[in-house]
Amino acid sequence: MPASLRLQGISASAGYAEGPLFDLDRIAIAYACKENTADEKAALETAIAIATGRLTALIEKADGDAADILEFQIAMLEDDALSGPAFAEIDAGHPADAAWRQALDAEIAGYDASDQDYFRARAADIRDIRDQVLRALTEDGEIAIPPGAILYGEDIAPTRFLETDWSGGGGIALKAGSTASHVAMLARSRGVPMVVGLGYPPAALAGIALLDAEHGGIVLSPSKAEIAAFRQSSSSFAARRDQAGTFLARPAVTRTGTAVRVQVNIADPSDVDGIDIATCDGVGLMRTEFLFGRTLPDEETQYRAYRRVLEWAADKPVTIRTVDAGGDKPVPGFTVEEGNPFLGLRGIRLSLARPEVFRVQIRALLRAAIHGSLKVMFPMIAIVEEYRQAAAMFAEEQAALAARGIAHKMPPLGIMVEVPSVAIVPEAFAEAAFFSIGSNDLTQYVMAAARDNTAVAHLNSVRHPAVLRLVAAVTAFGLREAIPVSLCGDAGGDPASIPSLLEAGLRDLSIAPAQLAMAKAAIADVSV
Amino acid sequence: MPASLRLQGISASAGYAEGPLFDLDRIAIAYACKENTADEKAALETAIAIATGRLTALIEKADGDAADILEFQIAMLEDDALSGPAFAEIDAGHPADAAWRQALDAEIAGYDASDQDYFRARAADIRDIRDQVLRALTEDGEIAIPPGAILYGEDIAPTRFLETDWSGGGGIALKAGSTASHVAMLARSRGVPMVVGLGYPPAALAGIALLDAEHGGIVLSPSKAEIAAFRQSSSSFAARRDQAGTFLARPAVTRTGTAVRVQVNIADPSDVDGIDIATCDGVGLMRTEFLFGRTLPDEETQYRAYRRVLEWAADKPVTIRTVDAGGDKPVPGFTVEEGNPFLGLRGIRLSLARPEVFRVQIRALLRAAIHGSLKVMFPMIAIVEEYRQAAAMFAEEQAALAARGIAHKMPPLGIMVEVPSVAIVPEAFAEAAFFSIGSNDLTQYVMAAARDNTAVAHLNSVRHPAVLRLVAAVTAFGLREAIPVSLCGDAGGDPASIPSLLEAGLRDLSIAPAQLAMAKAAIADVSV
Repeated sequence: MPASLRLQGISASAGYAEGPLFDLDRIAIAYACKENTADEKAALETAIAIATGRLTALIEKADGDAADILEFQIAMLEDDALSGPAFAEIDAGHPADAAWRQALDAEIAGYDASDQDYFRARAADIRDIRDQVLRALTEDGEIAIPPGAILYGEDIAPTRFLETDWSGGGGIALKAGSTASHVAMLARSRGVPMVVGLGYPPAALAGIALLDAEHGGIVLSPSKAEIAAFRQSSSSFAARRDQAGTFLARPAVTRTGTAVRVQVNIADPSDVDGIDIATCDGVGLMRTEFLFGRTLPDEETQYRAYRRVLEWAADKPVTIRTVDAGGDKPVPGFTVEEGNPFLGLRGIRLSLARPEVFRVQIRALLRAAIHGSLKVMFPMIAIVEEYRQAAAMFAEEQAALAARGIAHKMPPLGIMVEVPSVAIVPEAFAEAAFFSIGSNDLTQYVMAAARDNTAVAHLNSVRHPAVLRLVAAVTAFGLREAIPVSLCGDAGGDPASIPSLLEAGLRDLSIAPAQLAMAKAAIADVSV
Repeated sequence: MPASLRLQGISASAGYAEGPLFDLDRIAIAYACKENTADEKAALETAIAIATGRLTALIEKADGDAADILEFQIAMLEDDALSGPAFAEIDAGHPADAAWRQALDAEIAGYDASDQDYFRARAADIRDIRDQVLRALTEDGEIAIPPGAILYGEDIAPTRFLETDWSGGGGIALKAGSTASHVAMLARSRGVPMVVGLGYPPAALAGIALLDAEHGGIVLSPSKAEIAAFRQSSSSFAARRDQAGTFLARPAVTRTGTAVRVQVNIADPSDVDGIDIATCDGVGLMRTEFLFGRTLPDEETQYRAYRRVLEWAADKPVTIRTVDAGGDKPVPGFTVEEGNPFLGLRGIRLSLARPEVFRVQIRALLRAAIHGSLKVMFPMIAIVEEYRQAAAMFAEEQAALAARGIAHKMPPLGIMVEVPSVAIVPEAFAEAAFFSIGSNDLTQYVMAAARDNTAVAHLNSVRHPAVLRLVAAVTAFGLREAIPVSLCGDAGGDPASIPSLLEAGLRDLSIAPAQLAMAKAAIADVSV
C-alpha cells in the first residue's frame, strides 16, 4: 500500500470534506468544424448567446455577490473588445472554437501576468467565460460531478461553483488560486470548504481525498489512522459550528463575564442586507474600495452608500475607512503600477497625493454623518503628519459646506494601526480619536511576509510574539490615554487567534459577518 | 522674470553641481541608406565591430566596477541573440539603423516592463549598446557636452558616464533612473553628484541649473537668493569632504573620546583592492549575491572568493552574509517571480527552501574559515526556527567535512536584524552569536515604504522615532546579554544619521568604503 500524500496550502474557507477528487482540468472539448467562415461566425454568435442566456438564468437563482459576478461576466461577454479578435481570427480562416480560445487565452495571459492579486483573480472570470462559450459551441455534455466530490484543479470558474450542488457536501482544492478571488468569497459565504495554493505535485492525483480547509491541507491515499483523526477533527468542527449558532443572538461575553464588543466588517452597502443588526455592536470597518471599483465614484453615489449603512445601523456606530486603494486593490485611473505595491503608494498616501479625489469622499462623509453615528478612519498612516493633513482637509471641507449652508457633521477621525511605525510609537499619534488595528497588514509588515504569498505563509502569523507584543502595547496605550482601540483584521474572527487577542487586552473586535457566531462562541471560552 | 522651478528626486550620489543642463534625450541620428541588403548588413557588422573596439579601449582606462560593466556590454554585443533579430530585419528590407533600433528597443521594452529594479536598471545597459552602435553607424559626431554640464534625461548610459570628462565638475539629473543602477554605483565611487526619480515636468527644461544631490533636488531659473543659499551649501559640503580626508587614516572616536568601530561593506572580492585595511576595522558585511549573478557558483569559486577577502583582512574580522537573493536581487534559476518581492521568498527563506544550493555555500564558508577571522550571518531571519535550521545545516556539513578529512572551521553564526519581528522580540534570538542591524530593510518594513519607490521616499527614513526605538532596544539588549550588535545599512555611512545611531547606543558601524572619511569625521562631531 502506498504511503499517504499530504499537500499544504492556505485555507480560503474553513471546513472539512471527504470525497473523490474531481479533476477540473481534464475536460477536453471536441468541436466539429463548419462549412465556411460565415457558418463559423454564426456558430460563435449562437454559442455566445447561449452562454449569456445561461448566465442570465443563473442570476435569477443567485443573490448579492453571486449576482454581481454573473452580471460582470455578462457585461464582458457582450463587450465587442473581447469577441472582436475571435471574429477576426475566423475571418483569417480559423474554426470558431480555436478562434475563441486563442482570443480569450491572450486576454487571460494579460491578467495572469499582472503582479497584482486583484487582476490575477480576474483571470478566473475570463477563463470561466471562455469555457462557457466553448461548452455551448460543443454541447458535449460535461462529465457529471459526483456528489460530495472535491473539485481539484489549477483554478475554478465562478459559474462552475454556482452550478455545483453543494447540498451533499464536497469542497474545493486548488493548485493555484487566491484567497481574494470571487470563488473564495462565495465559498466563505456559503460555507464550502476551500484550500488554495497547494502547488503542483509531480504526478496526477486521483481517488478519495481528505480536505482539511480549517488548516489548509489535503491528504490522498490516507491511512486508517489519518482517516480516523480527520473524521474527529471534522466532527469537532461541525459541533463547534452548530453550537456556535446559539451564541449568535447574544452579546459576546468571556467565560469570566468580561464583555467584548463585536462589530462587523463590510465591503459593500448591500452586505448589510444579510445581517441582523441585533447580532453585532455596529460596523467596525466599512471598506470603500469597492465603490471605487471601475470608475471614481461621484459625491452623490458615495453619500447614498454611506447613508444607507448609517440608517441601517440606527444608533450603533459605523466606522468608515477612507479609500484604501493600492496594495492588492488597484483602481484604474487612480492607483499606480509598482514593484512592491504593499510597500507603495496606497491608502492615505494615495489620497493625500490625489486631493481632488479625496475631497469628494470627505464631502460625502461629512454630509452622511448627520444620518447616524459615523466614525471615519484613515488607512496606512505611517507618520502623524499624514493624519494632520487629512484632518485639516476635513476641517476645510466642513467650512466650505457650512458656507454653502449644506447639512453636515464632523465625525470623530481615527487611524488604522497597520504600519509598524504607529504600533511601535503610539504616543506620537495620541491626537487621533481612536485606533483600529489592521492585523492583516500589521502582520505582513512585522514579519516581512506578504499575506497573499503561499511561499511565506508559514511566517505570516498574527500569533507571532512580535505582533502580539505590538497589539498589547497599543491596547495598553489606548487604555492609559482613553483612546478607544479595536482590531479589524481577519484574526479577530479566527477562533484560534481570539484567545491571544483578548489576552493582549483587546475588548473590541470587528469581523466578517459570517464569523459572528463562531467568534462569539470562541470568546465565551476564554478566561480573561 | 519667471519663478524658479524646483524638482525633487532621490539622491543617488551626494554632492553639488551648478551648470547648464545638457539634454541627453535630444540626440537625433541621420543615417544614409545603403544600396542593397548585403551592404546594409556589412554596415551593421562594421558598426558593431567599431562599438566593440571602443568599449575594449575604454576598458583599459577603467578599473574594477567600470571594467565589469564594459565587459558585460561587450559580451552582450557579441551575443547573436541580440544582433540576430536586427540582421533578420535587414533581410526583410529595412535599413541597418532602423533594424538595429527596432531589435534593441524590443529588448529594452522587455527589461523596462520588469517589476524588478535590477532588470529595469539593466535596460540602461542595453540602451547604451544601442546608441553606441547607432553612433558608429552614423559617425555624425555628437554635440559636445560643455564642461561642468548637468546631464539631464530619462536615463544615462554607463559608457556615456565613462566617456564624460568630470574633472571640470558637472552632475547627473535623471527623470527616471535608479539608485541601484550601474551608473549610480559609478557616480558614488567617483564622487559625481547624481539625482534620480525627478519625474516628468510639463515642459522641456533648459538653462543653468542648481543640482543639490546631497538632498536630492534640482532648481531651474533660480533666484539670486537661491543661488546664494545653494553656493553656501555647496561650499559647506566641499569643506566637510576636504576636512574629512584627514580623518581617514585615524581610528574613529567621538568628540568625547568614545571609540566607534567602523567596518566596510563590500559586494565583490575585488572591492578590497581599492581599500587600505588600516583605514577600517574589518569587513562588517560581505555580500555574496554578486557571486550568484548569472549562474549558481560552485563550491570552489565561492571558497576562493571568501578566502581572498579573509587573507586581505589578515587578523581583522570578515562577516560574510549568506546569499540574500530575491527582493530586488533576482538570480536566474534560483529566485522566483513575486507580486511583492520585498515581502517574499528571499534571503534565508530562499536558502532554506533550496538546501542543495545553500549547502554548497555552507561548505565553501566552512573551508574558507581557516584563512582568517570569519563570521557568518543569515539575512532576513524572521523566526528563530530559521536560525536553528541554518545552524543545524552548518553542523551537518561540518561533520561531513570532518569525516572526509577536509580542513575547515566553524565560524560564529549571527543574524541580520532587518525583519521587524526580530527587533521587537530580540530575546527570542539570544542564541545567535551576534546581531547586525540591516537598517535599509528594517526601515522599509517599519515604515511600510519600499526603499526603491520615489513616491514613498518621504516616509522611508531611518531617523523616524519608530526605527530608532527598535535600534536602541536591540542595542541595549545586546549590551545586557553580551551579544555584539552592529549596523550595516546605508544609514551607517550617512553623516546626517550617524548622530542618531550613536545616541541609540550603537558603537559598531559597517559602511561603504567611499564613505569612510566622511563617516569618521561625522563621528568625531558627536558627543556620546
